[in-house]
Amino acid sequence: MYRLQLLDTHQRIKPYIHRTPVMTSRQINEISGAEIYFKCENFQRMGAFKMRGGINAVLALTDEQKSRGVVTHSSGNFAQAVALSAKEVGIDAYIIMPSNSPAVKVAAVKDYGGKVTLCPPTLKDRMAFANRVVEEKGATLLHPFNQIEVVMGQGTAAIELLEEQPDLNILMAPVGGGGLIAGTALAGHYFGKNCITIGGEPFEVDDAWRALQSGKIETNETINTIADGLRTTLGTVTFPLIREYVDSIIRVEEQEIVEAMRLTYERMKIIIEPSCAVPLAAVLRAKEKFAGQKVGIILSGGNVDLGKLPF
Amino acid sequence: MYRLQLLDTHQRIKPYIHRTPVMTSRQINEISGAEIYFKCENFQRMGAFKMRGGINAVLALTDEQKSRGVVTHSSGNFAQAVALSAKEVGIDAYIIMPSNSPAVKVAAVKDYGGKVTLCPPTLKDRMAFANRVVEEKGATLLHPFNQIEVVMGQGTAAIELLEEQPDLNILMAPVGGGGLIAGTALAGHYFGKNCITIGGEPFEVDDAWRALQSGKIETNETINTIADGLRTTLGTVTFPLIREYVDSIIRVEEQEIVEAMRLTYERMKIIIEPSCAVPLAAVLRAKEKFAGQKVGIILSGGNVDLGKLPF
Repeated sequence: MYRLQLLDTHQRIKPYIHRTPVMTSRQINEISGAEIYFKCENFQRMGAFKMRGGINAVLALTDEQKSRGVVTHSSGNFAQAVALSAKEVGIDAYIIMPSNSPAVKVAAVKDYGGKVTLCPPTLKDRMAFANRVVEEKGATLLHPFNQIEVVMGQGTAAIELLEEQPDLNILMAPVGGGGLIAGTALAGHYFGKNCITIGGEPFEVDDAWRALQSGKIETNETINTIADGLRTTLGTVTFPLIREYVDSIIRVEEQEIVEAMRLTYERMKIIIEPSCAVPLAAVLRAKEKFAGQKVGIILSGGNVDLGKLPF
Repeated sequence: MYRLQLLDTHQRIKPYIHRTPVMTSRQINEISGAEIYFKCENFQRMGAFKMRGGINAVLALTDEQKSRGVVTHSSGNFAQAVALSAKEVGIDAYIIMPSNSPAVKVAAVKDYGGKVTLCPPTLKDRMAFANRVVEEKGATLLHPFNQIEVVMGQGTAAIELLEEQPDLNILMAPVGGGGLIAGTALAGHYFGKNCITIGGEPFEVDDAWRALQSGKIETNETINTIADGLRTTLGTVTFPLIREYVDSIIRVEEQEIVEAMRLTYERMKIIIEPSCAVPLAAVLRAKEKFAGQKVGIILSGGNVDLGKLPF
């Protein structure tokens, strides 16, 4: 079932996304002992893989739904993805953003034509504001990860990576709400050859790792991680997929994330956001597991505040 | 004459260099009004175009010369290029580096197998130390730009760019010692279709701009530019080529360099060194000149101290 859905999704969104390049680094291969292929979603439109899920969710709407627009609440990449996706399709995007969002992010959403409403910075307020737009405008609420159309869209990055490197042994992605890792694991399952999927997650927000142990969705008591895209917990759509299709999750320390991020900047000369460095940090932490393997890593995004780099 | 020499050079060095990608940015095209193709030599081996000239100079040696090794004095990219080139060919590389070179650069040269000697940080001392190696070891002195084999090697980046985008109207590169811009201009002349070459140079070290006015090599009284790769003046080999084949040079302010650098980081998600941002700064300064043109920019390198970014 998912196989066809993934292929359909890829065909549908292709005109709206970049086919991002796959990069390698001799030096990082030497350091890691693995043969790593980086799928550069940091070069994706609006700077992150979220464009894939966002545009797919928008394209899946009926004409009547489209006429009433979409709404989401996000301070990050998904806000930009929905705004740009809506603009591409010519519909309204109502974006609820916490009032403490960085001005640059608010400006980016507005640049893409998003109708921004600022709300108090609590999840309760965000949801209340979004629900009000649903009621008043009849707009459709889009979820950043816990929605199957979004998961399918995110999985297309791994499809493209496998088209170029069909015999990868391992696919990797960071784990936040689980949309990217779930889509990646589905792609690996249906289009890889004995290809397993491994997630990377910070120790500081290891709800997904614990969820795989306990068999139920877990929460994080604190969110003290530099990987700001991974602070959310799994959802009811993503968790069952992760449980079935993801091989394992490797947790990493904050310092390991910073080191992997720096290594990527210095050796590959590309900009990635902290969350994006987590899978490479996992490879370097568990070298013996990856030695000699062909590993595909989804570089999730490059939207970072250059004035606040951790080095 | 140069046409065949360029083609031969390209064939000879191909096995030792990366075919770097050509990138575009919708957003930068919108901002500039031009259609820009960036040749990403920041992804070249050792992080800069200098690898092309370095390996070509090494491959041009006779077997007897090779057996006695090569020597150069440099604190920057050329030191790494010569060390890595010599390693590739299996010969000795003696690298004279000023004692105030950043430790990370000395380490990089040693990593590539270069035999580093530190010297007092004056040009006189650098040359004296290098000449001593020439006398004692019989090693061949390689010049970072004022040597035709180096110019030819640097020109191959533009050859590759023109292979992918044959109808560029304008080629651009930064101007320091002139090796890259001279090679680029030759490639544009022989392999472009009515393609002119324009250099970018900081106002603070505008010796090449003044040399085109005066008809003779000029010096810089001060070198107060962030573009540390462009502080040198033209040489006796590069100046005549530039005079004949370069259309013009556009000078830019320091703040314009920083803004172009930041724009590249934020919109393209790639790391470039300050010198590398100079051509884009020139396009943005002289927008009317580039409006609607197909412009190829050689992104020269990405070796930057991440702890000292100007933003």
